[in-house]
Amino acid sequence: MRILGIDPGVATIGFGVVDAERGNQQLVRYGVITTPAGIPLSSRLYQISQDMSELLRQFDPDEMVVEELFFTKNITTGIAVAHGRGVILLEAERLGVPVYEYTPMQVKQAVAGYGKADKRQVMLMTQRLLKMKEIPRPDDAADALALAICHARSATSLLNTDRVFDPKKYDTR
Amino acid sequence: MRILGIDPGVATIGFGVVDAERGNQQLVRYGVITTPAGIPLSSRLYQISQDMSELLRQFDPDEMVVEELFFTKNITTGIAVAHGRGVILLEAERLGVPVYEYTPMQVKQAVAGYGKADKRQVMLMTQRLLKMKEIPRPDDAADALALAICHARSATSLLNTDRVFDPKKYDTR
Repeated sequence: MRILGIDPGVATIGFGVVDAERGNQQLVRYGVITTPAGIPLSSRLYQISQDMSELLRQFDPDEMVVEELFFTKNITTGIAVAHGRGVILLEAERLGVPVYEYTPMQVKQAVAGYGKADKRQVMLMTQRLLKMKEIPRPDDAADALALAICHARSATSLLNTDRVFDPKKYDTR
Repeated sequence: MRILGIDPGVATIGFGVVDAERGNQQLVRYGVITTPAGIPLSSRLYQISQDMSELLRQFDPDEMVVEELFFTKNITTGIAVAHGRGVILLEAERLGVPVYEYTPMQVKQAVAGYGKADKRQVMLMTQRLLKMKEIPRPDDAADALALAICHARSATSLLNTDRVFDPKKYDTR
């Protein structure tokens, strides 16, 4: 299963492509999409939509993963990010790629094994799990890779289990 | 000049189409685009992009107007609105329609003649200026019409002046 992790934004969008199989994650590609400052927001969003569309077509992921949005710090930044995030979700929908969301705590838990791990710990585990020589840069790309790994570990853990989950058996309603 | 005012959102998007000529505003159409709850955000954004595209093609506006985003009250709502707003700006850009923004205070000033006018005063003036029998409903559509009027009055006031504006004459750089 090929997973595309996306760290949304308007100026910089991080992306990370990972192939996940049997609890193993293989790095395919990572990087950032950037848009220039000093042009209208609508033009930047248009560029994002074009680049996202190209990214989705080129790497043809089975699933896309983005972080759930929480804004406690900077509302203005949050609003801008949400504009970009809207366009990113739209392109995934347009190309029929299902989107999954995780909280920052879920990502830290899945990648570093600890929901309150710091940024550096998550990056080091991302590097180790993907057998990279260095910590992935820039941060936006590293965040996108961590998201992809989080989904890989969440999704494949279900596929790898010997137990066959029977919903009726556990339905307590 | 045909103006499309848009009140952005995800659940409900208000729109108002106004023809503006020589300080006069003529109502063309108004209403709302709605998306159902209970489907993924990406699906709602896709519906918005489709409906916005159809709206822009059907009414073929020269310019689109949206409110500048300020969020002091509900951040969660603001984040959702910004997702929709991103997709709306994208569709305008895709179809080559220039986008203008005004603050709520500028809209109140332009429509009701008073920057601190209340919602009802703005609605009554919208009704009067567009020669409507009743106050436009729902609120999202009324807000969109007020935006269109605001732009009409701001834009046509420049066109109606007897003075010909010579940028060189006033260039003080």
